[in-house]
Amino acid sequence: MPEFRLDPLSGHRVIMAAARAKRPETFAGPKKEQSGGGALPSRREDCPFCEGNEAHTPPEVLALAGPGGAERAPDSPGWRVRVVPNRYPALDPGEPPEVELPPGFASGESLFQAVPGYGFHEVIIEAPEHNRHPAVFSPEQALLVIEAYYRRLQALEEVPRLRYVQLFRNHGRAAGASIEHPHSQLVALPFVPRRLLNELERAHRYYLRQGCCICCHLLEQERHAKERIVAENEMFTAFMPFASRYPFETWLVPRRHRASFAASSSDERAAFASLLREVLGYFHRALDNPPYNYYLPSAPLRAGELPHFHWRLVLAPKLTSAGGFEAGTEIFINTTPPEEAAAFIRDRGRTHESWKKDLLCPGPAQSSARGQF
Amino acid sequence: MPEFRLDPLSGHRVIMAAARAKRPETFAGPKKEQSGGGALPSRREDCPFCEGNEAHTPPEVLALAGPGGAERAPDSPGWRVRVVPNRYPALDPGEPPEVELPPGFASGESLFQAVPGYGFHEVIIEAPEHNRHPAVFSPEQALLVIEAYYRRLQALEEVPRLRYVQLFRNHGRAAGASIEHPHSQLVALPFVPRRLLNELERAHRYYLRQGCCICCHLLEQERHAKERIVAENEMFTAFMPFASRYPFETWLVPRRHRASFAASSSDERAAFASLLREVLGYFHRALDNPPYNYYLPSAPLRAGELPHFHWRLVLAPKLTSAGGFEAGTEIFINTTPPEEAAAFIRDRGRTHESWKKDLLCPGPAQSSARGQF
Repeated sequence: MPEFRLDPLSGHRVIMAAARAKRPETFAGPKKEQSGGGALPSRREDCPFCEGNEAHTPPEVLALAGPGGAERAPDSPGWRVRVVPNRYPALDPGEPPEVELPPGFASGESLFQAVPGYGFHEVIIEAPEHNRHPAVFSPEQALLVIEAYYRRLQALEEVPRLRYVQLFRNHGRAAGASIEHPHSQLVALPFVPRRLLNELERAHRYYLRQGCCICCHLLEQERHAKERIVAENEMFTAFMPFASRYPFETWLVPRRHRASFAASSSDERAAFASLLREVLGYFHRALDNPPYNYYLPSAPLRAGELPHFHWRLVLAPKLTSAGGFEAGTEIFINTTPPEEAAAFIRDRGRTHESWKKDLLCPGPAQSSARGQF
Repeated sequence: MPEFRLDPLSGHRVIMAAARAKRPETFAGPKKEQSGGGALPSRREDCPFCEGNEAHTPPEVLALAGPGGAERAPDSPGWRVRVVPNRYPALDPGEPPEVELPPGFASGESLFQAVPGYGFHEVIIEAPEHNRHPAVFSPEQALLVIEAYYRRLQALEEVPRLRYVQLFRNHGRAAGASIEHPHSQLVALPFVPRRLLNELERAHRYYLRQGCCICCHLLEQERHAKERIVAENEMFTAFMPFASRYPFETWLVPRRHRASFAASSSDERAAFASLLREVLGYFHRALDNPPYNYYLPSAPLRAGELPHFHWRLVLAPKLTSAGGFEAGTEIFINTTPPEEAAAFIRDRGRTHESWKKDLLCPGPAQSSARGQF
């Protein structure tokens, strides 16, 4: 029997259609279009993101250097992670305009309202090598990427006209990636996107009524329910949300309440990098390097320590195509219940190493993987 | 210089990024995965939607018969359009549940809220032949499809627990179609989707302030501006919206105010079928049978003649992939401004016949195609 499920954070509904069910294993096996992985060369002469080709990007805004990198000149080899403005930016970082889009329309006014597209669009080049990607990064490389996210967010908090930064990653052509070399992106906007405003307002109402962050409550209930947990460490939990819109949608949530990723401690960033690398590794093995998107909903810039909002990372493998129903209603039909998908990932994604680790430090995720369900 | 543009109906913003511009012609040429068209056989033994295979679908709920079809038995050959329940329905048409999803959460309540997935999911089989599709239908066949939509909407208005019907079509694998045989679908829901509620509320506020339907105003302004018009006839106008989310997004709007497609007259349905066939033909020729979705936002069931809401058809070719930015913000980056896309379709999509017709009945779209822009 299909179900309508409600996502408490966004208020969206999904149709969980188990009768149309795709067993999780139907998504395993090679995809038609993959990117990353061993089949690619470690360097390409024509790739602007490869080490040695620094002249083919706009001047860098940040570089995290490798050993001996102290004497490195900007825009030269020797970096481990490098951040550059997008050469074909979606937004223009020039003069911020005085005008803003109106919330509504005055009488007799034109319905064609536009303002200049002020904002920043940057590329976080995640490694000097062309053929690496986060599922196969070393722990050190994974942490450097997260550090680069953090430093750029901190820097952009200082730009007065910006209100929100969306960090995101597209992996594989089906997920919108047009360049093979491993990279994330950020777009900094002069307003808070409506999707986030909606979540902020819902969370605020919940907080006023119940005196607690809704995401803290959700995390507590997910850890108690156990069945949708994918993995966790001492500071972060990864689970597939009850109202997942896509098969295998997974959230990584800090267990300590934090409104903004930009406010995270260095311990938290290390734990975040470690769990993200672990979860991407599980997906890589269980689903054979699937295309995916991830994005990082976080509080608006300079919003302070909001007690009602909680940042997270949303990981959405791109294994199905949305159609006219989803476009028309914004209701997603998901044929792979998160309970089954999480069990599948726990079962197939783990390496021998991660099983060994479980035996040393049991916890909700680990005990569940030992057959409690 | 990129722009933020505002869609007056939904309130969504898009980034129109002309600096990243894809010229319209980059989307022409054969797509990797196509469906429909001449390469397919006219009948497949294993296709449940082909004529003669009626036993492989659930019993039909409607059939529009061809000549001599008066004596046709149900679920047998001789039909021109046939509507059947989906064999793998996303929703269950059984007993409607007493419970509804809560708008919020009470203190101490579980955040995992679900209700049984009551609703209807039907397939409109648009032709007996396997290898036809709407861009190459005869005018008669195109009208029969629209008549089938109309009759099913009328019938579903009578089901008390249903509140909304989403009609939609997925064409091509990239647009979510899993079956080649030409078909549309409908999903009937026991609630009004939030996306539509949002549009209804915005339209209602506009109406209270300005005393007019916002879509009627928009239509007036688009016909005056001319540059985004694709085609029109005596009762319908097709244009690419100012804040198009996707390259070549096109709306078909009835010029007479109508809240619901279910309230349309037979003249209007004929004009709608004719313009839809014409526009799909333009796309087919100009973009070489692109994958697309269309869907039909219309008033909730039994809502009567709302003076503020106006039904339309939204046609969205699937030529690009959304990524993590779009998923995180619900802001779309469109690299093909609708002004250029509309000029391209007017220029490349028209056949000799349609040019001849233009010369006989000039109008905004036609005069624009003769180089007024």
